[in-house]
Amino acid sequence: MESYQALRTHIHNEGIIIKKKTFKREEFLKVANTLDTNIYFIESESVRVFFIENLEEHTLYFGHSNSIITALDSFLSNRKTALEIQALKKTEVGYLTKKEFLDFVNSKPVYLKLWNEVLKEIIIHQLDREKDLLIPSTEQRYQRVLKRKPELFQEIPHKYIASYLRMAPETLSRIKKS
Amino acid sequence: MESYQALRTHIHNEGIIIKKKTFKREEFLKVANTLDTNIYFIESESVRVFFIENLEEHTLYFGHSNSIITALDSFLSNRKTALEIQALKKTEVGYLTKKEFLDFVNSKPVYLKLWNEVLKEIIIHQLDREKDLLIPSTEQRYQRVLKRKPELFQEIPHKYIASYLRMAPETLSRIKKS
Repeated sequence: MESYQALRTHIHNEGIIIKKKTFKREEFLKVANTLDTNIYFIESESVRVFFIENLEEHTLYFGHSNSIITALDSFLSNRKTALEIQALKKTEVGYLTKKEFLDFVNSKPVYLKLWNEVLKEIIIHQLDREKDLLIPSTEQRYQRVLKRKPELFQEIPHKYIASYLRMAPETLSRIKKS
Repeated sequence: MESYQALRTHIHNEGIIIKKKTFKREEFLKVANTLDTNIYFIESESVRVFFIENLEEHTLYFGHSNSIITALDSFLSNRKTALEIQALKKTEVGYLTKKEFLDFVNSKPVYLKLWNEVLKEIIIHQLDREKDLLIPSTEQRYQRVLKRKPELFQEIPHKYIASYLRMAPETLSRIKKS
C-alpha cells in the first residue's frame, strides 16, 4: 500500500481538505441499493464490505488502518452499489467525493500514475482472492491469506475472517490451533 | 470493452508495430512458473486462463476476439506467473512487450487515462466474478454469467464454461435445458 500512502501525502500537500467522519461500532458507512461514490481513507480501526444474497452475508473485503475503501462497484461505474460497508469498531475515516478525488488525480500525470498503481494493486489482490475462493481446502485457504495479509488476523474479529475465508468460525478455530 | 478498442486504435495510429503470432489448438501461450509480461490482443478465436492446484484445473478467465489478455499476475507485478494460458482453437494474437506497451501508455495523458479505464473494467469484472464464486446456487451463477457475458456461450466450449462456473458439465447441460 505504498502507492496509497503516497497518494494520501500528495492530497495533503495539495491543500485539499479531507472531511472527517466517525462511525460507531456496527454503524453502516453505506448500504446496498444506494449511490455513494465517496472514497474513504480509514484513519483508525476497520470496516468490512459484504453483500447479501439469499439472506446470507458474503464478505468481500476489509478496510483497515491506512487503507482506502469505496463501494468499488459504485465508485468505478457510477451504478448503485450492491455492497454494504459497516464499521467493525468505532472507526474514523477521512473522505473525498469522487469528483474531488478525480480532479486531484487528473491534475498531474504523476498522480494519475499513482492512482494507476493503486488500481493495479486492487487487481492483484482480487486475483489472489479469486484463487483463494477456488481452492477447496480450508487449511490451504487459511494459510494463503495468513501469509498474504497477516494484519487481518490482528485487526479483524474472528467471525468475520471466518466468513471471508468461507468457513465456519469453529473450522477456523480448529485450523488455528493445529 | 470500448476502452480496449480505443487503445488498440491509438497504438495503430502511433505507428507502433504489433507483432503477430498464431497458436495451434490447445497450444500454450504461456505456462506457469515462467515470467512473460507480454500483453496480447486476441485477433481471432479464444484462449482460457487457468491455474493448477492439487492436480485440478481452475478456470480464471477467458480471452476472446477483441479482448486483451495477459498473465495478469506477471504483467502487473513482474513476478513469475502462476497462470497458464492456452489457445482453445487456432488463435491469432497480436502482442507487445510490457515495455513497449507502457512506453505507449505513458507517452500521453489521454492514453494513460484509457489504460486506467481498462484497469477499472478489470476490477469491475473481478468484483462480479468474486460475487459469482460466493453464490452457492449453480442456477444463479449460470444466470449471472449468461446475463453479463452472453458472448462466452457462443465462443467458449461447454466444458470450459462449466469449469469457469464451478460446476460439472452435466449440471450446466441440465440448467441450460430447464
